[in-house]
Amino acid sequence: MKVDGKHYRSIWLAADGWAAEIIDQTRLPHEFVTCRLETLEQAAQAIEIMQVRGAPLIGATAAYGLCLALRADAGDDALEAADARLRRTRPTAVNLMWALDEMSGVVRNIARADRVAAAYKRAAEICDEDVETCRAIGENGLGLIEEVAAKKPGETVNILTHCNAGWIATVDWGTALAPIYMAHDKGIPVHVWADETRPRNQGAALTAWELNSHGVPHAIIADNAGGHLMQHGKVDLVITGTDRTAANGDVCNKIGTYLKALAAHDNNVPFYVALPHTTIDWSITDGVRDIPIEERDPREVTHMRGRIGAGAMETIEISSPGSGAANPAFDVTPARLVSGLITERGVCAASHEGLLGLYPERRDEEG
Amino acid sequence: MKVDGKHYRSIWLAADGWAAEIIDQTRLPHEFVTCRLETLEQAAQAIEIMQVRGAPLIGATAAYGLCLALRADAGDDALEAADARLRRTRPTAVNLMWALDEMSGVVRNIARADRVAAAYKRAAEICDEDVETCRAIGENGLGLIEEVAAKKPGETVNILTHCNAGWIATVDWGTALAPIYMAHDKGIPVHVWADETRPRNQGAALTAWELNSHGVPHAIIADNAGGHLMQHGKVDLVITGTDRTAANGDVCNKIGTYLKALAAHDNNVPFYVALPHTTIDWSITDGVRDIPIEERDPREVTHMRGRIGAGAMETIEISSPGSGAANPAFDVTPARLVSGLITERGVCAASHEGLLGLYPERRDEEG
Repeated sequence: MKVDGKHYRSIWLAADGWAAEIIDQTRLPHEFVTCRLETLEQAAQAIEIMQVRGAPLIGATAAYGLCLALRADAGDDALEAADARLRRTRPTAVNLMWALDEMSGVVRNIARADRVAAAYKRAAEICDEDVETCRAIGENGLGLIEEVAAKKPGETVNILTHCNAGWIATVDWGTALAPIYMAHDKGIPVHVWADETRPRNQGAALTAWELNSHGVPHAIIADNAGGHLMQHGKVDLVITGTDRTAANGDVCNKIGTYLKALAAHDNNVPFYVALPHTTIDWSITDGVRDIPIEERDPREVTHMRGRIGAGAMETIEISSPGSGAANPAFDVTPARLVSGLITERGVCAASHEGLLGLYPERRDEEG
Repeated sequence: MKVDGKHYRSIWLAADGWAAEIIDQTRLPHEFVTCRLETLEQAAQAIEIMQVRGAPLIGATAAYGLCLALRADAGDDALEAADARLRRTRPTAVNLMWALDEMSGVVRNIARADRVAAAYKRAAEICDEDVETCRAIGENGLGLIEEVAAKKPGETVNILTHCNAGWIATVDWGTALAPIYMAHDKGIPVHVWADETRPRNQGAALTAWELNSHGVPHAIIADNAGGHLMQHGKVDLVITGTDRTAANGDVCNKIGTYLKALAAHDNNVPFYVALPHTTIDWSITDGVRDIPIEERDPREVTHMRGRIGAGAMETIEISSPGSGAANPAFDVTPARLVSGLITERGVCAASHEGLLGLYPERRDEEG
C-alpha cells in the first residue's frame, strides 16, 4: 500500500540484493523509519521486540532471517541453530513455524553451495504468495461488506476491528483490513471503529495510521467501548485477524478479541475472522485448551510511549508505581462465537468441516 | 482509609469549617495532593474534570458545592442556579441528582438566614451516611468472598474489578472494594485483578494505588485480558460498582463493564455489583435504553499523562495524529448478566423484585 504516495510492502529485499528491509513498527505512528536486517540475530530481535508483528509478516521475516543465517554459514549445524533461534522468538503465531518449515524443506536436502540462493528464492515466493493470498482474502471478504451495504443503501457500513490486521501485519493488503480497503476503493461508504488494543495500542497506532494514510474514515475507541457501540446498533460487522486458527475453528488473536466476539454474539452482530491458510494449525483440535499464549513484559502495561506535543518521543509510567501487572498477549475465541472464516479460498463456517470444505486436500491427509 | 499511615476520607470540611477539601484524583497515583474547594464553580469543575469521581463522591461533592453557593448567596435564584450548575456537571451518575434533591429539600422551605447552616449539616450527614452505607456493603459482600474461600481452603480467592469503586470513589470504604478490604483484613487470602480501565485508567492509577496502600495483593491487567483469565479459571468472582442502577436491575458503570459481565457469564464466574441505595434510579425501567451515557473528550483516548522516570509529569500523544476518537464513558450491563446486587441492606437478585425485596418501602410508593 502507499505511504505518502510511495508504494511499500512491509518487508522487501534491499537494493544490494541480500539485506532485508522493514518498517520499524515500534516507531509508528509518529515516525516512519525503515531499517536493514543484516543478520539472523537482527531478524530474530526485530520479531521479538515487535519491529515487525502480525502473523504473516512474522513468517516472512523469519524466512529472510534464515536466508541471512545461511549467508553467514550454510552448514547443517548453523541451519539448525538458526531455525531454533527463530522458532523461539514468539510462541503464538503459527505462520512462524510454517515459514520455517517451508524454508528448511527447501534447503535441507540440497548442497550447501546452493542453499543461499534457494533460500532467498523461497523467501521471495513466501512474500509474493502472501500478497496474493491477502488480495484474495480481500475479495472474499468484500462480499460480506457488500451484503451489509445492500441492506442499508446509501448508509455507512460500520465495521469494528481489533488490533492491526492491515497491510503492515502482512506483506501487503492485510487480512481483516483487505476487504475494507477494497470496499472503500469501490466507493462503498465504510467507517471503521479501531479498537485501541492495549497494551501495545496496535489499533490506535497502526490501524489508525494505515486507515488515515489510505483515507478510510475511522475513529479510535478504547477497547472497552465496542460492547456499548454494538448494543446501540453502531456496529454492522466485526472483522479481525488471527495469529493461529485451530482445526476446530477456534481463533487465537490479540488479547481482547474474545470479549468483542462475546459482545457481537450478544447483539447479533456478525463476527468474521480473516486469515491465510498459513495461520491454520491443523494439529490443534481445541484452541482454548492447547494454543500457547505468550506472556509479555509487564512494562508494556505499566508504561507507554508517545510524543510530547510535536516534539520528542518519551516513555511515561501510567500506573501506580508499587503495582505489578500481568500481560497475556493473546486470547482464544471459541468457534461457536465466530460467524465465519474468510480465507484466500472463500468464506467458510468456523468448524473442522468448514475448513475441510475449503481445504479438501487436508481431508486426504487426515483420512 | 489510610494514606501513609494517616486516616483520610475522600472529602472533608477544612479546619476553617467552611471550605471543602478533596484529594485531587487527577494527580494520583504519582502525586498525593489535596485541594480546597471554596466556591460553587470550583466544586462543579472538580466534578467535571474528575478531580473527584465515583458516583457516591460526586454526590457528596455536589452537596458541599451547594453549601458553598449558599454561603455566597442564600437567595432562591442563587439556589436554583447552583442546583442547575451542579446538575449538568456529569449526566450519568444518579447520586448527583439524589444529593442535590436532598440538599434542596432541606434548604428550600426554610428562612434564608438558616439555609447555610442547614446545608452544611445535611452535607455532613450525606458524607457520614455514605461511610456507614459502604461499611455495610462491605459486610454484605464479605459473605460472598467467604463462600468462595470455603470452597478452596487455603487457596487465594481471585477477584476481578473494573474501574475504581474503592474508598476514593466514595467518602470512605468504597463499594466494590469494601468487601475485599474486609476479607483481606480478616485474613482471607485475596488477590485482585485490577482492570486498567481505559481511557482514564482509574484501575491502574486509583484501584492499584488504593490496594497497594492497603497491602492487598493485586496485579494490573489490560482491559482486554479479563476474558482470557476467566477462560483459564483464574477469576473466582467479579465485583464492580455502578453509577446508576435501573429499577429492573440493569447497571450502568464505567465503559467496558458490560464486556466483563459477558465473559463472566460465558465462564460461569459470579458477577456481582456493589451499590448504595443512592445509585438506584427507580424511574428507569430499562437501563440499556434509557440511561444517558456521557460522551467525553476524545483527547482522553488519544493522549495520556504519566511520569517520566522518577521525574516530571508529562502528557504524550499515543495514537495516530490524523485520527479522531470516540469516547463513551459508561455502558450498561443488562440485569440478566448480573449474579446479584450487593447493597447496604443485603444481597439481592438484579431485578425489580429483588430490589423491592430489600427496599419494600418502594413497593408502597409504587403501589
